[in-house]
Amino acid sequence: MRITDMHITPIAITDPPLRNAAGLHAPYALRTIVELVSDNGISGISEIPGSQAVTDALIEAREVVVGHDPFALNHLLHLLEQRFRSHGADARGQAPWDQRRLVHIFSAVEVACLDLLGKDMGCRVVDLLGGPARERVPFSAYLFFKHEGAGGPLEFDLDANADGWAQARQVSALDPEGIVAQASAMCDEFGFQSIKLKGGTLDPAIEVGSILALREAFGPDTPLRLDPNAVWAVDTAINWGKKMEGVLEYYEDPVRGQEAMAEVRQALSIPLATNMCTTSFEDLPASIRLGSEDIILADHHYWGGLRASVELGRICRTFGRGLSMHSNSHLGISLAAMAHLGAAVPNLTYALDTHYPWQSDEVVVGGQLPIEEGYYEITNAPGLGVELDREALARLHSSYLDCGLKNRNDEIEMQKIEPDWTFKPTRW
Amino acid sequence: MRITDMHITPIAITDPPLRNAAGLHAPYALRTIVELVSDNGISGISEIPGSQAVTDALIEAREVVVGHDPFALNHLLHLLEQRFRSHGADARGQAPWDQRRLVHIFSAVEVACLDLLGKDMGCRVVDLLGGPARERVPFSAYLFFKHEGAGGPLEFDLDANADGWAQARQVSALDPEGIVAQASAMCDEFGFQSIKLKGGTLDPAIEVGSILALREAFGPDTPLRLDPNAVWAVDTAINWGKKMEGVLEYYEDPVRGQEAMAEVRQALSIPLATNMCTTSFEDLPASIRLGSEDIILADHHYWGGLRASVELGRICRTFGRGLSMHSNSHLGISLAAMAHLGAAVPNLTYALDTHYPWQSDEVVVGGQLPIEEGYYEITNAPGLGVELDREALARLHSSYLDCGLKNRNDEIEMQKIEPDWTFKPTRW
Repeated sequence: MRITDMHITPIAITDPPLRNAAGLHAPYALRTIVELVSDNGISGISEIPGSQAVTDALIEAREVVVGHDPFALNHLLHLLEQRFRSHGADARGQAPWDQRRLVHIFSAVEVACLDLLGKDMGCRVVDLLGGPARERVPFSAYLFFKHEGAGGPLEFDLDANADGWAQARQVSALDPEGIVAQASAMCDEFGFQSIKLKGGTLDPAIEVGSILALREAFGPDTPLRLDPNAVWAVDTAINWGKKMEGVLEYYEDPVRGQEAMAEVRQALSIPLATNMCTTSFEDLPASIRLGSEDIILADHHYWGGLRASVELGRICRTFGRGLSMHSNSHLGISLAAMAHLGAAVPNLTYALDTHYPWQSDEVVVGGQLPIEEGYYEITNAPGLGVELDREALARLHSSYLDCGLKNRNDEIEMQKIEPDWTFKPTRW
Repeated sequence: MRITDMHITPIAITDPPLRNAAGLHAPYALRTIVELVSDNGISGISEIPGSQAVTDALIEAREVVVGHDPFALNHLLHLLEQRFRSHGADARGQAPWDQRRLVHIFSAVEVACLDLLGKDMGCRVVDLLGGPARERVPFSAYLFFKHEGAGGPLEFDLDANADGWAQARQVSALDPEGIVAQASAMCDEFGFQSIKLKGGTLDPAIEVGSILALREAFGPDTPLRLDPNAVWAVDTAINWGKKMEGVLEYYEDPVRGQEAMAEVRQALSIPLATNMCTTSFEDLPASIRLGSEDIILADHHYWGGLRASVELGRICRTFGRGLSMHSNSHLGISLAAMAHLGAAVPNLTYALDTHYPWQSDEVVVGGQLPIEEGYYEITNAPGLGVELDREALARLHSSYLDCGLKNRNDEIEMQKIEPDWTFKPTRW
């Protein structure tokens, strides 16, 4: 079997004004949909975070991918390494999403190849990853401090008749009461049994206060997580952390860098998690040496694909690390890939992060995938179990062309609300 | 798809009187052939080192395996863990082949499932492991000090008309001249481009002398390896090692245990390799902490299967370890599995160990698989690319019943030649 074509489609999806340490989500999140077509007429799909640089890199990768055997992924990675390393494209930025281009591009190609192979052979992606350890994959509620609005075009009117989650996702949430209301509406809708709050945005007193309010509202049986996005100082993280001992399931990236994480970890009796200080295989030796975290948040988009993430799972088992999963704003193709990975990895037992409830667009046939009782259940359909809705793809590609965004820049979005706001690596 | 039957066939294969630190190879090596049959009439096969305990454990495992989906390997491992951990079967002995039963049994099941899946779907095992990084897999000559004979029944006559390797494999080799003659004949026959000598058997002066004689005979372009089987003291290993700096490609298990290995490694400028001090995922944290070796010899039979070995490959890349491969006396099913693994793992770039030239029996259709120019080239046939020769299987099972051996015991075999010989963990 040979890959005969590779379609690369940047899309823009409506995204609400969610806050994080880098600023504010723009009205649209950018994703890129990749479709690989093989010479037997089967195609496989994948979805990755998008940007102009990603599109450019995928176009360059296409020269290597087309003509290749979709099974020969190790060889394909080797060819892509040769291609991309030659112009230093594996250099790494400071922002969490500014990862090495090679692993990002390869993840798009690998997931689409696995989907293609599964659809060709009549097996599921989870089967190609070692088979399911579970069929139902738990996801966590993902709460954000946010401003009013649901994202999308500027002229977009809020739905005055909305209720439940449809209403709650429109309103602002900038204090503990707002966060508890957001959590209640989201958990009512999706049945989530764990809750994560994205922090690093407001004064720690408000963020920790929100965690304590969630504990009060949901009780000790609902695991809680706080993610200050690495913008707290070590002292801040320790002092506020003391107030959350016995409350947090884990404390995600309170501080920046492996050394600082290790220092906080020594001072507290809360497990530390990361998707910022240990984000690649190259980071693991120092992670093990320093003891920078207890739990690693995998993300197949940034760790070089699904098989690489399974291998990360083995490393976590071997070196006594727990494993959870990171998310960006995403649609159903990524959700399915995350779920097949979550089903395959024996130790991926923490409920996975997902931004999915915040999204209203979809690119797969049948619309949004169901999350019920906090779980997404992988289906028996081959490959990833999802198909591309080509009308929706065309519409979302038009949104991409119309919205004018070419890169994610949360700082600029934040400055539209607070003109003097700038990103600070350590804010509190 | 469901597994409907699991055939477990212990076999005995003719094995020459090869020496190692544990004693002497018996006239027969024991292997066990596993065949899994599925409800669509396809079957998959595997081969593992055999013993009464292995047969018993496989019979017990069959209760879990039959009825299971061959794709759902993560779940199957979980079930086998529950089954075997309940009676402490993961306890570990002192000898290198006395590994935890669970990983050993699981490797038999996993390889047969992957062969079955490949044959069902029309793809190769290497494809299920991430695709080939190479199609031709390099193997190393594996030299042994040995006594006269080719193994097999006691009344077996040596073939007086044999020449080339067929002749060389019959004769004794107990000094440097014998080893060089053995190497020449083996390399002439199979084209090996790397040479390993199993040591730990004779005085270090003879073993190191043999390495220096091989260097003299083959020149600096043929990588050489010496494996003293962990029975040298630290001082012995360092003193003799100094004489092999610049000569050895790697020095395998000169001493016993990770601490001693780390001490020798600090003292020498030769890379250290192991299949004795770091032989499981549980051993890796201490290996990384202590720096006990540079190269790990994988063995899918003892690391829990092919996918686990791919994961070991990732760990080696991540933590700066090289990767090579260990061997026991084996037939073509194991050779094929080793080669598919060797083809898939990007960093399995050292020539792999194999005892295959020492074997004269075979259990796959078509007889012994070809090793040419030192390489075995995986074929395009589905699964492992080999089929069971049922007549040969029946004959080798008869040999098993007739030979009376139920376990490997190299010490007893050695005592037939030297009655006072006993195994010593540190001999020199």
